[in-house]
Amino acid sequence: MGESNYIIQYIQKNREHLVNEWIDKLNNLNEKNISNIISDQGFANICNEYINLLIYDYNKEENAKNRISSFTQKLIQLGWTLSFIMDCITEFGKIVFFHMTKDDSEKKQMEFVWDYDKWISPINNKLFSQYAASWQKTISLQKIAL
Amino acid sequence: MGESNYIIQYIQKNREHLVNEWIDKLNNLNEKNISNIISDQGFANICNEYINLLIYDYNKEENAKNRISSFTQKLIQLGWTLSFIMDCITEFGKIVFFHMTKDDSEKKQMEFVWDYDKWISPINNKLFSQYAASWQKTISLQKIAL
Repeated sequence: MGESNYIIQYIQKNREHLVNEWIDKLNNLNEKNISNIISDQGFANICNEYINLLIYDYNKEENAKNRISSFTQKLIQLGWTLSFIMDCITEFGKIVFFHMTKDDSEKKQMEFVWDYDKWISPINNKLFSQYAASWQKTISLQKIAL
Repeated sequence: MGESNYIIQYIQKNREHLVNEWIDKLNNLNEKNISNIISDQGFANICNEYINLLIYDYNKEENAKNRISSFTQKLIQLGWTLSFIMDCITEFGKIVFFHMTKDDSEKKQMEFVWDYDKWISPINNKLFSQYAASWQKTISLQKIAL
């Protein structure tokens, strides 16, 4: 891993603490929706699966696509909207940002923003795209049935 | 408008120049895809429509949703994937960032990042969600037909 993967290394090392804080934040943010859709444990599992996607070795390109795809399928089955997924993931990014840069200069904070954009955002964008693609695939299959 | 809308004001004032630079960037980024899908003028129209969404007065809540929704419908009809739309919009954000903060301190740059997140990202997220929702609506309609 290159040096910029310090973010992924941090997430890996502080996983439990980050997931707990993430769940707290999301429960406060949108309490009714989450508890209606999924149990606490189920939600923790989703959060951990997301982190698994971040720390996965994406040199194994083919597998990566399948992993993201099966994760988005699960979210679709749970009835999560793209808007909700984006809110969750944005919230996670902010938690990581505050923990990793809270004592840093603004210069370091800006470096973090660009590194996050370079290393984490592409994975997030793949996830969002796969989510939309899964819906599109469903439409195609339905068209065949029509 | 509050003071944080200085970003939107900047976009409004520098619209033509920003659109031209944006189109250049996207043509370099993904030349084949864009020219295959849409003419230069068509592409400029889409870019301008996106900027119209940014500078729109979102106090008129009902209209706003319709506007975003009809824009995403157009993108779906053009065959644009969510991934491509996200790349385009990210590229636009970077152009605005570099122009608005190129002579600024990192402190000011960080302020811009948070202000962009506060004022522009919610509109982008609505757009992405509407895109996914349009596909979901199509599925529901097809299910009725099945």
